[in-house]
Amino acid sequence: MQNFTYSNPTRVVFGRDTIKRIGLEIRQQSIQKVLLLYGRASIFENGVYKAVTASLNEQGVEFIELGGIQPNPLLSKVREAISLARQHQVQGILAVGGGSVIDSAKAVALGVHYQGEVWDFFENRVRAKAALPVFTVLTLSATGSEMNQFAVITKEDEQKKWSISSPLLYPRVSIIDPLAQTSLSSQQTVNGAVDALSHIFEYYFDGLEDTDLQDEIAEGIIRTIIRHVKILVAQPSNYESRAQLAWCAAMALNGTVGIGHKGGDWASHSIEHSLSALYDIDHGRGLAVIMPAWMRYVSAVDYTKFERLAERVFNIYDIDAETKSLEAIISLRDLYLRLGAPVTLRELGIPYADLERIADNATIEAPLGTFKKLFRGDVLEILKLAY
Amino acid sequence: MQNFTYSNPTRVVFGRDTIKRIGLEIRQQSIQKVLLLYGRASIFENGVYKAVTASLNEQGVEFIELGGIQPNPLLSKVREAISLARQHQVQGILAVGGGSVIDSAKAVALGVHYQGEVWDFFENRVRAKAALPVFTVLTLSATGSEMNQFAVITKEDEQKKWSISSPLLYPRVSIIDPLAQTSLSSQQTVNGAVDALSHIFEYYFDGLEDTDLQDEIAEGIIRTIIRHVKILVAQPSNYESRAQLAWCAAMALNGTVGIGHKGGDWASHSIEHSLSALYDIDHGRGLAVIMPAWMRYVSAVDYTKFERLAERVFNIYDIDAETKSLEAIISLRDLYLRLGAPVTLRELGIPYADLERIADNATIEAPLGTFKKLFRGDVLEILKLAY
Repeated sequence: MQNFTYSNPTRVVFGRDTIKRIGLEIRQQSIQKVLLLYGRASIFENGVYKAVTASLNEQGVEFIELGGIQPNPLLSKVREAISLARQHQVQGILAVGGGSVIDSAKAVALGVHYQGEVWDFFENRVRAKAALPVFTVLTLSATGSEMNQFAVITKEDEQKKWSISSPLLYPRVSIIDPLAQTSLSSQQTVNGAVDALSHIFEYYFDGLEDTDLQDEIAEGIIRTIIRHVKILVAQPSNYESRAQLAWCAAMALNGTVGIGHKGGDWASHSIEHSLSALYDIDHGRGLAVIMPAWMRYVSAVDYTKFERLAERVFNIYDIDAETKSLEAIISLRDLYLRLGAPVTLRELGIPYADLERIADNATIEAPLGTFKKLFRGDVLEILKLAY
Repeated sequence: MQNFTYSNPTRVVFGRDTIKRIGLEIRQQSIQKVLLLYGRASIFENGVYKAVTASLNEQGVEFIELGGIQPNPLLSKVREAISLARQHQVQGILAVGGGSVIDSAKAVALGVHYQGEVWDFFENRVRAKAALPVFTVLTLSATGSEMNQFAVITKEDEQKKWSISSPLLYPRVSIIDPLAQTSLSSQQTVNGAVDALSHIFEYYFDGLEDTDLQDEIAEGIIRTIIRHVKILVAQPSNYESRAQLAWCAAMALNGTVGIGHKGGDWASHSIEHSLSALYDIDHGRGLAVIMPAWMRYVSAVDYTKFERLAERVFNIYDIDAETKSLEAIISLRDLYLRLGAPVTLRELGIPYADLERIADNATIEAPLGTFKKLFRGDVLEILKLAY
């Protein structure tokens, strides 16, 4: 096992009817005024906005609000929110939504205290030194942002969808109420599950050895996600499966799986981020296409882990390493197909002629990955496999 | 899944040669003076004492020291340490040792700030409101105390081995260097593994449903412990297995497995605590005897989870529920036998005539457990099965 330091300070409040506690949680941190960020109209339809604002009012927490944060959240919106946060001198940011809203809140939390351009953090030009506390009320389990130190933002004029990591970005408190997710569409649910699975795969297939417990836990989360996303496609309002999927998504990227690794592979994420940046494609749908293609391209480097996935997740035994590995990858792709996720770039409406351009965008900071170091030519091959 | 709140603030520094960082970790918390607690001579023999004190000196952290804390740590020693901590006005407690030293440090950390008798916390007469920060350098992975909010102390004059739980008791920083454990005896290693396994079982067999992910993770930790403790009995200095076992023991009781449960069963622990209190038996040895006997006594209440253990840990399939459950329990007992752990009270040197007295001690606060509520008569039957 690699040496590691681990500390996850986020306080998670999980379960039925927990949203009404958000006001108290904020007030207990001695915070009187927050910027409330959200995305689209859904939180008005499912009662989440009402529950949140009622709780804030009840506890006397003032709030300014800004809606309209979109999936693949934009830097321009982050800048708008930073101005608003400064103007109203808020003491914290409250994200009510999924990963895009939470990631925006994190970027705002950093930007408020920084006199330069917040994108500097994403370009690694400066290191984060202070941030406002972030609170979250999660409405879509997928990115794990509710319990981690990451944020991903798109700088639209340069078509860069890039990420940042800082211990300052762990949310102070995250409310995860699975009831808030029972009105999600099948597609949103599946996208979330694919995203969570992909986070696990990024560590599982990073080429490291001596990660025995981490692999056991990774496989346990993978099996649990697969069981419950299948249930949810048929029964969207099944509370227990919503709860299981929600906790799986948080655990997939809260450090538990990555402990003792060296940071993961993340090549598939980098490639997908280019799809999202260039075509505004939903991250989960992009990953459903890219990750199995990446697996097909790299598996021959070392079949060990692919064989293990075949056995422990898909119950495939008694064939040679290469075939077993391929069967595991096909089983994953078949699963995505059955769940209604896209598995080809063609389905995403991307012209074949664009593959070169995507490869360019994805390899601005090449090489990608650790399992196999990928350069522009490799990425192009993966995109062709995915087409 | 049950509603839960989760927050584990302990910072873990894990891996080879991490002990030398203890001074810096303490100084970074703005602490100038600590009480250094330890147990027996082993830390002088394996170089841990030297590495710790060198690091403290290097960072200019003053320390007062007190050794001689014994397994099943005593309240009298805790009182002695509290006096010393007050007299020297230390700002933190540094535990260098296993669970007994860490638990003592936690009790001291609470006691320093409390004007009454520290045992009041264990009798639930008062609630903890403040504690000094606790730092740990772990030398024996077993109790999980390095990453949780629990402490267990023995009040010798009343023969009570009782526990306390408070969020104030999470260590501030814990150093887990598997190299510090390569000189442990096979018996100490096995005791630690049995303790960690028992912590998982206390949640796994608590009678709750809808704990799918938690069960997957529990089974993953169980399988990993079994694999690596077997290796360590043959190769005590195998670093990777030391690392895996160490991380398993921390994960077994750091909240991960217990999330979404209702606090666990803990009847077997209560019974074992009576053995430790009355006969000063090592906790891990007592659990190796009691837990399989408890399983035999209660399994007929509901075979579901015992069947699951049979399949997922011991690869036992294709027989009826009762037989499969019994086979799982026998497999666990056989494992303990093969590892050299005791499996009967007789081997622990306990007279048969004492069983009534043990049952009395264990049921001061009856009923015990949640899977099956146990009264004095039930405990006596379990003790007879264990004899």
